Amino acid sequence: MNTKFYNSLILLTHDDKTFTIIEGEMHIRDNVIAYIKGTPVGADRSVIKSAASYEQGEPLLTFDSERDMKGNLLMPGFKNAHTHTAMTFLRSFADDLPLQSWLFDKVFPKEGQLTEDDIYWLDILGIMEYLTSGITSNFDMYFFPPKNAKASVDCGFRTVQTSGLNNFGGSVEQVEENYNIVNEMSDLTSFIIGFHAEYTTSKEIMEGIAGLCEKYKSPMFMHNSETITEVNECKERWGKTPTELTDELGMYKYGGGGYHCVHMSDNDFQIFKDRGLYVVTNPASNLKLASGVAPINKYLQLKIPVAIGTDGPASNNCLDMFREMFLTTALAKVREGDAACVPAEEVLYMATTNGARCMGLEDCDRLSVGKKADIIGIDLLQPNMQPVNNIVKNIVYSGSKQNVMFTMVDGKMLYDEGKFDIGFDTQDVYKKANEIIRRMQ
Amino acid sequence: MNTKFYNSLILLTHDDKTFTIIEGEMHIRDNVIAYIKGTPVGADRSVIKSAASYEQGEPLLTFDSERDMKGNLLMPGFKNAHTHTAMTFLRSFADDLPLQSWLFDKVFPKEGQLTEDDIYWLDILGIMEYLTSGITSNFDMYFFPPKNAKASVDCGFRTVQTSGLNNFGGSVEQVEENYNIVNEMSDLTSFIIGFHAEYTTSKEIMEGIAGLCEKYKSPMFMHNSETITEVNECKERWGKTPTELTDELGMYKYGGGGYHCVHMSDNDFQIFKDRGLYVVTNPASNLKLASGVAPINKYLQLKIPVAIGTDGPASNNCLDMFREMFLTTALAKVREGDAACVPAEEVLYMATTNGARCMGLEDCDRLSVGKKADIIGIDLLQPNMQPVNNIVKNIVYSGSKQNVMFTMVDGKMLYDEGKFDIGFDTQDVYKKANEIIRRMQ
Repeated sequence: MNTKFYNSLILLTHDDKTFTIIEGEMHIRDNVIAYIKGTPVGADRSVIKSAASYEQGEPLLTFDSERDMKGNLLMPGFKNAHTHTAMTFLRSFADDLPLQSWLFDKVFPKEGQLTEDDIYWLDILGIMEYLTSGITSNFDMYFFPPKNAKASVDCGFRTVQTSGLNNFGGSVEQVEENYNIVNEMSDLTSFIIGFHAEYTTSKEIMEGIAGLCEKYKSPMFMHNSETITEVNECKERWGKTPTELTDELGMYKYGGGGYHCVHMSDNDFQIFKDRGLYVVTNPASNLKLASGVAPINKYLQLKIPVAIGTDGPASNNCLDMFREMFLTTALAKVREGDAACVPAEEVLYMATTNGARCMGLEDCDRLSVGKKADIIGIDLLQPNMQPVNNIVKNIVYSGSKQNVMFTMVDGKMLYDEGKFDIGFDTQDVYKKANEIIRRMQ
Repeated sequence: MNTKFYNSLILLTHDDKTFTIIEGEMHIRDNVIAYIKGTPVGADRSVIKSAASYEQGEPLLTFDSERDMKGNLLMPGFKNAHTHTAMTFLRSFADDLPLQSWLFDKVFPKEGQLTEDDIYWLDILGIMEYLTSGITSNFDMYFFPPKNAKASVDCGFRTVQTSGLNNFGGSVEQVEENYNIVNEMSDLTSFIIGFHAEYTTSKEIMEGIAGLCEKYKSPMFMHNSETITEVNECKERWGKTPTELTDELGMYKYGGGGYHCVHMSDNDFQIFKDRGLYVVTNPASNLKLASGVAPINKYLQLKIPVAIGTDGPASNNCLDMFREMFLTTALAKVREGDAACVPAEEVLYMATTNGARCMGLEDCDRLSVGKKADIIGIDLLQPNMQPVNNIVKNIVYSGSKQNVMFTMVDGKMLYDEGKFDIGFDTQDVYKKANEIIRRMQ
């Protein structure tokens, strides 16, 4: 299956967090980028007179499909680096409540009623929403990881599963079993070791998780320093922060990182830097649950890599990378009192390249020959993208789901011009999700 | 021209900031809502068994157009209560810069090059963007108000113009002239007295503006306490805050309010409360320019009415009421450390009813017989709106421009299923806007 995109702008990513836009064409062979050719243009679409033509790979000669991009942009898909996808069933179910009451009175009792089959359908709904926002893979923590992975495979979506193991269910042995099942399930699925959070998990479990990290040489991720209460209680229990504790347990020997990372100490920063750990920021959720604003500018200054996640739909409530990108820079600006900090280019790099690397998806981190064809089309001919002063800043500051022309995962067009091609009827998925919440009432 | 919407959910607004959703039909005669009928349902679309059928007005008998809403929602259009529409030309032109450098090195020199004709086309581009976000009227402050008003009338869009008068151009006489021109231009246009801000304007001009308020019994609006520097410098100059100063000059005898209102004193709160003034909050702009987070919860506690604006596209950078609604509640939550404050219903009321009343558009403040047909259709059959736990919370927390099926202003469908019907070719408008920015380079 050969695909050709032509008459296109193409966003190329560089390791110094800059971007080049070229005007030209891209060829896809099955699920891999085979050829890119074009002439560099400015972010404002101006012709760069000195620019040499860019060419990478060997052109394909015949095509099963050809698409005139009409001057619109191809870019790498967004990576949603922290989420609980199947929590779609709790969207708008318990908003505007204090955190404790939200979690203990509303979320936990409902989660107790979930079946594996429920989670399968709720996942598919979440995957549809990802596709509308140009998200091509998720780093997902929820019950029944093999079921979540199966939902992704059935849709053609790429997923990295982790474990949400804690004191209230599951076991280290089950995490190991899921690790092997999900890693072997499909090219679209993988598993990274993790657990829920220090405040929900015994030291014995954490030690077991550390053992798995060692056995499989796996990175490790958990919710880390999301609220100040969590950090203070951890310090009371152990005399150290969640980062210090898990580091001392040997959990980061093969890397990894933390979700949220809002309330971190100088020593926590140092551990993240020394171990090469990723911060996954979740700005909308941190606002909505009144958790705080993460020190993103500090992470950049220390060269700690940041990726971006939506968190789950119960706490956000939507799964939209455009909103998260705007918040990542805008909240940093007001936090630091500096309108110049965390520029748009840094944020776009977080949402694409850093996200991919944090999730172990190095072959999805940019548009380049040999990389996986996880590609989105961005419609520049909408009022919010006009006039064209700067395409990258337009994407981060004024982009929206409305600009997502299509979302291609692993070379397959899963969402195109508002229509899904994931093997499920849209209305059936909505019907299933509504049946689940009605049954629980 | 009679229009019928049927098989529809319809959002009815109550003065206690609650909403009822009914399932039924609505008839429009020319530009006015003539008839509403339906059966109340829960925000989760459940049947309310005890609910009596709702009927208002007299049904029309023949229709020029009928639309099957397929169970989707009709609601009042959003009111963008503070903006500088024609600043579309500076979108993504000077982001990620310190405020002073942004304003003095970038914005002001470019604005100096604008012609009235430029502003006309840049306005039309902004109006198109409003329509994509379900915004049916704007409260606009920029150069050449009659030209802005003309652009709106030509598109069929409703606008309230105010003056941005300051020391750097214009006169009180010109404001008076514009007041009369714009108020008499069309049913779609009106003018409320205003000036730019204390920090840009002499006391003589402010006194002149106060005289106009008295002469025309007009409310008065200005940028107020947007940054802490502005407030501190005002106190140094006058020994009082911008609110105190303008109140003492007699500017609020007939009401009005302030844009931004981020850094307000207890006495400022009291003046707003006593005078019945409106706060117009601009959360995205306040973040992006690192100005701060407005005390929205405090305003609610004091029963000071709040409306919502996008501010101009140079400082936001998009004109999207969904983003502003989410920020209005989410920033309040993190500011107060209280996930329960500023609930979704308050925010939806701000973005519709309060906005209309603040702008003097009482006849556009809700869906009710006799009110103007400024109506939007919200597509509930998108993944971000499913499942249906609560429609109002879905709109505020997970709604997006993608959910805007259509935007009707004054009974005319200006935007429908992604297509504009404003009397201008979309591509021509983009071309004009790009010609303007290229000419200025």
